[in-house]
Amino acid sequence: MALAPEIVVSRWFNTSEPLTLSSLRGRPVLLHAFQMLCPGCVAHGTPQTQRAFDLFRHSDLQVVGLHTVFEHHAAMTPVSLEAFIHEYRLTFPIGVDEAVEGVSMPATMERYGMQGTPTSILIGRNGNIVHHGFGQQSDMALGAIIAAELAAPRG
Amino acid sequence: MALAPEIVVSRWFNTSEPLTLSSLRGRPVLLHAFQMLCPGCVAHGTPQTQRAFDLFRHSDLQVVGLHTVFEHHAAMTPVSLEAFIHEYRLTFPIGVDEAVEGVSMPATMERYGMQGTPTSILIGRNGNIVHHGFGQQSDMALGAIIAAELAAPRG
Amino acid sequence: MALAPEIVVSRWFNTSEPLTLSSLRGRPVLLHAFQMLCPGCVAHGTPQTQRAFDLFRHSDLQVVGLHTVFEHHAAMTPVSLEAFIHEYRLTFPIGVDEAVEGVSMPATMERYGMQGTPTSILIGRNGNIVHHGFGQQSDMALGAIIAAELAAPRG
Amino acid sequence: MALAPEIVVSRWFNTSEPLTLSSLRGRPVLLHAFQMLCPGCVAHGTPQTQRAFDLFRHSDLQVVGLHTVFEHHAAMTPVSLEAFIHEYRLTFPIGVDEAVEGVSMPATMERYGMQGTPTSILIGRNGNIVHHGFGQQSDMALGAIIAAELAAPRG
Repeated sequence: MALAPEIVVSRWFNTSEPLTLSSLRGRPVLLHAFQMLCPGCVAHGTPQTQRAFDLFRHSDLQVVGLHTVFEHHAAMTPVSLEAFIHEYRLTFPIGVDEAVEGVSMPATMERYGMQGTPTSILIGRNGNIVHHGFGQQSDMALGAIIAAELAAPRG
Repeated sequence: MALAPEIVVSRWFNTSEPLTLSSLRGRPVLLHAFQMLCPGCVAHGTPQTQRAFDLFRHSDLQVVGLHTVFEHHAAMTPVSLEAFIHEYRLTFPIGVDEAVEGVSMPATMERYGMQGTPTSILIGRNGNIVHHGFGQQSDMALGAIIAAELAAPRG
Repeated sequence: MALAPEIVVSRWFNTSEPLTLSSLRGRPVLLHAFQMLCPGCVAHGTPQTQRAFDLFRHSDLQVVGLHTVFEHHAAMTPVSLEAFIHEYRLTFPIGVDEAVEGVSMPATMERYGMQGTPTSILIGRNGNIVHHGFGQQSDMALGAIIAAELAAPRG
Repeated sequence: MALAPEIVVSRWFNTSEPLTLSSLRGRPVLLHAFQMLCPGCVAHGTPQTQRAFDLFRHSDLQVVGLHTVFEHHAAMTPVSLEAFIHEYRLTFPIGVDEAVEGVSMPATMERYGMQGTPTSILIGRNGNIVHHGFGQQSDMALGAIIAAELAAPRG
């Protein structure tokens, strides 16, 4: 298993202070990469992430949304994202994946070698990538891998 | 039944020339008002309108989408709408309801007294409003009222 | 278009007296053939027929369910069907398609040349088959063909 | 937590030999009580149980279906259940909860104090009831509680 690269975020929503994986070491992290105009994200991935945030609220799982814009950049600005978050009542922390000049793919997305959106990645207590899922994930399987990681001994 | 007011559109997508209700007189028109960041539109109203466009393709029904932005104006610009139309593969003509200075509600939405989005309005061959539905409509009922109007005698 | 053959029913539910197509001549009839243990019927076809029954309640459409058992005969008896109708809260008239000795397919199903269940057939005011649909039908299309037939001139 | 009472089964499907909780001690058991004519079971609970059976196929979870008929007894006989299992392609072991003379509720259902169907119960490695859920359960929550129990140390 590979160590999860640090995320690079240019702006945060739903959190009073920036999040970093290094400061979260020791806790499992569910990293959900989405785009607000990606139909599969809006219909499945993003509401699923909200369900995970709600279900595991009393555990030490940290849910982190990541707006990984790699197409239609002018259409998916932070201003539009903010309205999207409001309208879809998303309450988990969401960061804007930092744009890289001259490249369509943003920084974190490139570091993780993501193939597109939605992508859901589970990072273990030890900072390793436990699961990297591209496309529609089953709720039951996601619940199971999160619970298995939560049950893992703490470093 | 009331005569349907003319629509006021500042920009068109999916049509090579502007549409007006006056030039469509004699044909039934399905007018679908939506916002690209309205969850009920994205999940139900807008794909339903696409289904109506596909189902009645060989009839003389005219389907007209109307982007009636009355909130989050900076988030739902024509640039964002264009990406939305592309990602959701909408192929029916869509107009941007003309903004009115100093007012949040755009021009056509105000003329029709719409309560919000999604709204689906059926205009009869004679130009009268046959059905004005706010919120989620049943596919079966919408199919039925369109078919009933298509069966009405032409002028 | 072919004239719809008469239905052959050995027992009725949800109606105080037997129905025949000949006595319904002049009214459109939606004939829905299903089996209580057919997953596609239970998930789609039968609730769709209930929706049609509810939607067109004030028209002169007659909805007729037909339990066309062609497999698992011992499992889908009238006793089981009665419980199914109760549990799924079906309120439209439902007849049991008459079994034919030595043959798995019941009488009406054979007359209509049905390929399986669910099958939804629309019979016009003049007694002709207007639509014969096997498998999952779209709600919008079904609503439209019923409404078109309802709009047809009577006799 | 209470020790799970033994199940009382009069007939088995999808297993070559009878199952007992006592012989399964040490393994987690998902016990799913359903009725073949219970709409909530057919639409949600039973396919969810099949998904759990498929997802945890390589773990030591044992999935046990239980046909707990407490109403419409003549309609839900083993003959009808067998056809239901075939048509819905259920592959996990399913037992018929033993009928009790003069009582509508079958034996196991009564022992567990079940309120109705569907009911999903998770029994831990130590034989205790870990979760007793009546009605629609979330896939994510069910996946999580099963995974948590699978991660528990083996006696």
